[in-house]
Formats: sequence, C-alpha cells, structure tokens
Amino acid sequence: MELKPVKNVTFVEGGVCAAKGFRANGIQCGLAHAGATVTAKKNDLALIVADTECTAAAVYTTNKVKGAPILVTKEHLKNGKARAVIVNSVNANTCNADGVEKANMMCELAAKELGIDPEDVIVASTGVIGQVLPIEPIANGMKSLAEGLTYDGNPRALEAIMTTDTRKKEIAVQFEMGGKTCTMGGMLKGSGMIHPNMATTLTFITTDAAISEELVQRALSDVVKVTLNRASVDGATSTNDMVCVMASGSAGNKPVTKEDEEFEKFQNALYAIMMNLARMMARDGEGATKLIECAVSGAETEKIAETVAKSVICSSLFKAMIFGQDANAGRIYCAIGYSDAEFDISNVDIDMSSKSGSIALGRKGCVTAFDEDVAKKVLSEDEIQIIISLGEGPGSAVAWGCDLTYDYVKINGDYRS
Amino acid sequence: MELKPVKNVTFVEGGVCAAKGFRANGIQCGLAHAGATVTAKKNDLALIVADTECTAAAVYTTNKVKGAPILVTKEHLKNGKARAVIVNSVNANTCNADGVEKANMMCELAAKELGIDPEDVIVASTGVIGQVLPIEPIANGMKSLAEGLTYDGNPRALEAIMTTDTRKKEIAVQFEMGGKTCTMGGMLKGSGMIHPNMATTLTFITTDAAISEELVQRALSDVVKVTLNRASVDGATSTNDMVCVMASGSAGNKPVTKEDEEFEKFQNALYAIMMNLARMMARDGEGATKLIECAVSGAETEKIAETVAKSVICSSLFKAMIFGQDANAGRIYCAIGYSDAEFDISNVDIDMSSKSGSIALGRKGCVTAFDEDVAKKVLSEDEIQIIISLGEGPGSAVAWGCDLTYDYVKINGDYRS
Repeated sequence: MELKPVKNVTFVEGGVCAAKGFRANGIQCGLAHAGATVTAKKNDLALIVADTECTAAAVYTTNKVKGAPILVTKEHLKNGKARAVIVNSVNANTCNADGVEKANMMCELAAKELGIDPEDVIVASTGVIGQVLPIEPIANGMKSLAEGLTYDGNPRALEAIMTTDTRKKEIAVQFEMGGKTCTMGGMLKGSGMIHPNMATTLTFITTDAAISEELVQRALSDVVKVTLNRASVDGATSTNDMVCVMASGSAGNKPVTKEDEEFEKFQNALYAIMMNLARMMARDGEGATKLIECAVSGAETEKIAETVAKSVICSSLFKAMIFGQDANAGRIYCAIGYSDAEFDISNVDIDMSSKSGSIALGRKGCVTAFDEDVAKKVLSEDEIQIIISLGEGPGSAVAWGCDLTYDYVKINGDYRS
Repeated sequence: MELKPVKNVTFVEGGVCAAKGFRANGIQCGLAHAGATVTAKKNDLALIVADTECTAAAVYTTNKVKGAPILVTKEHLKNGKARAVIVNSVNANTCNADGVEKANMMCELAAKELGIDPEDVIVASTGVIGQVLPIEPIANGMKSLAEGLTYDGNPRALEAIMTTDTRKKEIAVQFEMGGKTCTMGGMLKGSGMIHPNMATTLTFITTDAAISEELVQRALSDVVKVTLNRASVDGATSTNDMVCVMASGSAGNKPVTKEDEEFEKFQNALYAIMMNLARMMARDGEGATKLIECAVSGAETEKIAETVAKSVICSSLFKAMIFGQDANAGRIYCAIGYSDAEFDISNVDIDMSSKSGSIALGRKGCVTAFDEDVAKKVLSEDEIQIIISLGEGPGSAVAWGCDLTYDYVKINGDYRS
C-alpha cells in the first residue's frame, strides 16, 4: 500500500525503534487459547523500552467494557510519564474477575526485569475476551524478553501484537523541530485476533522529540479524532483499544510547552503516522480486499461531514457492493440519507475514483446514468475513493473503511478453539 | 417458524384478504432491471382493494432519501382515507428525477381501472434505486390486474412484492371488539430485492374493524416502535420503507374514537400482526440461517433497554458468531458496552437459550466458565434468544435480528444485472 504523503514530513524505514533511544523485542512465551491444543505459532509477548524517561499520553476505548490493562495503564499514565510498554496477544485479559491483578503483575514483572518503577510501565493485551490470563508463560518469558531488547527489535515486537492481521503495519517519519531532526515511529495491530476478535486496535508510537506531558496528550487527542476514530472495519468499538505515544526528548529540541508552531510540527508528524496507520488498518480489515476512502466536503460543519463519511464506510450494503465491484449508487445515497446529520439530500453529488479513473454516480440527489464499464474499471482497483459533496458549506472530513467479504464471515464465524 | 402467541388474539389463515371486503391480485407485468436480459420470473405488480372506503394510516422511512412513492402516498393519506394499494417490485422508483410523476401515474392508472379517486390510492415500490421506472408494463398490465382481483388473491399479491425474500410472510388474526369478531391480516416483504437491495421493508395491513383516522394512525405509530423498528437485518434504513393499515369497518363494531379499552384491543391485534411479521422478516434476513431475539430487562428505562438490545442484534461480530455457532460471550459484552446508553456494566448478566436448553454466559460483567458442549447445543437451533439483565431498573425491550452469513455477502456483492 502506498503511503499518503504529508507536508514537511519524510517517510523513513522502521517503526517503534526508528526514534533514537528506543529498544524493542518480541518472543513466543506460549500463551494459548482455552481449549486449543497448540499455542500460537508466533510471537505473543512484546516489550518496548526507552533509554530515558518519556512524557507519555494515551487515548482509550470508549466502550463501557474496558479491558483490565486499560484500567491499569490509565492509572500509570496519570503523571504523564512512562519508560516501557509490555503487551501480549492471544488473550485480552478482559471480563475476567482477576484482570486488574494480572495486568498489574505484568507491569511488575517487566519493571523488575528492567529495574524501573512498575508505574512507568504501559500495559496492553489483545485476544479472546473472558478467559483467565495465565501469568506463568509471561513470568517465565520476561527474562529472555528483556535480554533480547535491541535498537532494531521492532519487527519482533510487531509480530507479537499481530493476531488476524495479514500485513505488518508500521511506519516512521522524520521532521524538523526547533532546528533539530526528530524521528517518530509507530506500529499498529488490527483489525482482529487469531481467533474471534473485537476489531481490537492497539497502536504504539515513539519519538525522540521533546514535548510536555500536557501537550503530547493534547496532540494525540486531537489527531486520533481525524485518523483512527475515522476508520472502521465493522463498527465494533473494542474493549481493549488503546493508542499511546512516548516522547523521550533525545533529539535535543527545546521541549514544546505551548501550542505554537513547534507544537503544530509535532502534531503534523503524528498525523502523518496515524493517518497512514489508519489507512493500513482499514486495508487490512478482516477479510478485506479493498481500502475505501470516503471524502465528504461541502458540509455545513466538519461534524456533519464526518457523520456522513462514517455512515457510508460503515454500511454493510455499501461494503458488500464494493467487494462485488457493483457501482450501485442508490446504496450510497441510502447510507448518506440515514446518517444522523442535517442537510438537504437534493444537493448531494457523488463521485467515485481510483487509479483507473473516475466517474460521476449521482447529482443533486439523483443517480446519474453512467457507463457501467467505466465504473467496473474504477472498482477493479485495490483502493477506491468515494467523493461526496453536500453543497452547503465549508465542512469536510475523510473516513476509511474496507469491503465486506466472505472471509470476514469466515474469520468471525470460526469456533474459538 | 412458529408464531408467537399474543393474549386475546387468535391466529387464522390468510393475509391481506383475511378481513371482510378486501380483494387482491398480483401479476407479472414485465418490469426488468436495467441491463438485465430477462425480466423477473415472478409477479411484480400487486393491487389490494377495499370494497368500501377505509380509514388509513402509514409510517414511513426516516431516511432523508425518500422514494418517490413515499412522497405521493404521504400526500394521499393526508385525509386519513384510502381504498386501494398499488405496489411494484424490481424497481424502487427512487433517486430518479421523474419519480413523483411516475408514482402519480401508477395511482391514476389504478384509480381509473377501479373507478375510484387517485387520491384514495396508496402507492409503493421496491427494487433497485436510481433507475428510471418504465411505466408501460404497469399501464399495459393494469386492466388484467384489476380484473383478476379476488377475495382470496393474497398469495398472488404477496408474490408480487417479494424480491430476495425466500419465505412468504403473511399473517392474520381474529379478535373481539365491541361484541363483534374482527379480522386483521397483513403481508410484509423484506429484507432484500432480487438484485441489490436496501433491506427494504414494505408492510400492508388490512382490517374490517372500525376505527377513526386519528386512532388508526396512533395505534400504528405506537406499535411500529416496538415491532418493526426493533428488527434489523443489516442496520440500513431503507429509502422505501413503509407500513400502512387500512380499516374498513365492515365488521360492524362501534368505531373506535378514543383511547379506551376497545382501542387497546385494536392495538393488541396490530401488535400480534406486526411483532410476528418483524420476527419473520428477521428470520428471512438476507442469507440468514437463524432468528435472534435479544431480550433486555432491568434497565433504568425502556429506551436504555432498547438501545442495548439493538446494539447486540446489529453487531456484525455477534451476528457472525451466531452463524459460526460460537458462544463467544465477550463479543456480547463488547456490543453491550459500546451501546450509546448509560448503565453500570459490572451489573450486567447474560444468558442464552433456545429450544435445546439454556446457559449462563456472563455474570456481573465477567464471562462465566460455561460448558461449551451445552452452548453448542443451544446454538444449533434456528431460533436463539439472548437474555440480558442490566440489574438497575424496570425497563425492558426485545429486538430481533439474524446471523451474518456468506450468503449475505453473496447476495449483496452480486452485480445488479
């Protein structure tokens, strides 16, 4: 998948180890699904460690059911500081009576091995919900996990957070801030688990830029709204979703402490990372064969544009139609029409484009007569753009999704063991 | 599928012709999909006619895109009176510049043939959106359609409104009102079209009970909220959804003119019809193999219970899990948790039942250890009940849905022609 460029930002190789002073590792500690006879044949436990203390921020799922690791991480990030991330796949450690206790144990095990404070550890889990997390494999694996930490360990860590993911999703950028070259990198898992899943998304971002606790949180909270929060695979908000950023300051820039131009540069780099991770996530949605980008403009407000864009990319009928490469414009009008926002449908235009061309599908609320062959050609590509104009105002928004396929049903209908 | 009994109501044979004085017919007039080389091999045009003028009411889609027939019917029902219904499948007559004109022509053609006022005709269409409706086949067929009207013509009319429907969905009941035996019957199409679809639901109900214009509307508006509005196949609110009731008064009861006991009896019969039609619709959802009923109780308000029940039956992950017969309780907690309602998740219990037994899946927000064999047995049935208790108050609600299957993707991914 091609990365989408962003001004003043250069893509570089790597992920969570791209920034100076971040080591990572991933191992197969042997977590198994309840009832499964074999363990996952891949890494299932990862560690990311900063050489120095970082300012840190996170955004969490809005689901009322919150995974135990979320609760523990929230507590640990109250002071806006962190040194390490410990994360496992296979088991989500959610909806278990002893969840918080186990999440705390994970932090303590990692902290002990690293010689740091457990409160400086971010903990995350992804996998099956409602099965007791066995702590032994994690305890037994911690020593070798820590010993194997390297400044290029990001691929091993990335493998450890993947579940039904079919693509490796990591990215890194460089940008100038305060006369220094800063680096930022991240990795993301989603949307799925090896066994049944909640479209769980975990994102870990590291940077050597210097920024205050308050502003790293503000930057993240703002950027997540227009990136990960505008991507949907199946409309389910996971119990374990979390995105966190750790900023070490090793790049030597003067720390960002107010919402000035330097802050904007930081936020811009974060946007480049998270917008592209959101696109990668949608493209790798369970069973997906196509990335769909829905760009809405001409809305009275950005909120209306966002509501319409999300309504389209979340429509099962629309998603199945993209899979079937059927330019059924009526379905797009239908999804626009039932979105919970106020606008006049008789002003709405729809276009569709891809690398192979573009075509007008609707004008002023009516489906236009279009060339089916052109439409088929446009739809034959891997990345499809739906362009909607509401013709009412300056608000715009982009949302990302994927098609609905047989494989989505297969992946999610399979028995857990 | 077994009908769900309702007190003081007896199920009888038939559909829209069950009540005294209603004739119906359906023919194949030859409407074709654009680009299709053959016409549908089934009836595509239906007429329902009352011997006398009826009080009539309807409830329409909330989609901002409204099919042209909806706009015309709304106009015609302003006076609360109707004599006939003309309805076609194959073409939705929606998102077309000449839609209203064509819908009016359908009313005029029917009215002329029947010798009634065009304003007394209810018009509906279902099928592909955004293709110009050819009026010729309808004009040419109208004479034989009217000539073939009989007091047992409901099966021919029912066939004409079906699209991807695999089951015939009609029902009739008898009930006592004002010392007279009244009859009420209805038919429903949904969820689908022969070609791509919008989960369009059309429901036509006839009765020989006597009731005022105002109260037939009030009864319908109330009952639709707890029946059709609580059923979902794929979360898409169609552009052409409509449910209408015609009440002739031929049963001879004293007309219902206020919200008294007699009104309640009428509403109760309407509930028996519409609740069972909603269940039939969900069971016949596109590609569905199972009917899911989600019953939520213990909510602070009915609204909260409804929100939770709908969140569960609309969850793609949950629906795929039911298809896969996998008792993944974590997914149910997840869907409960992201529902847009306020309650304490740590009070929530989940049970599952079917003809083959029942099983506890969650207690106090945690997944319980349950016997997978029992769960599999429960899930092997065609009708599955998910029972959720929020443990906070008196509010309850039931919602109906279906599983998400390969066939859903197949039906909706197929090219239109």
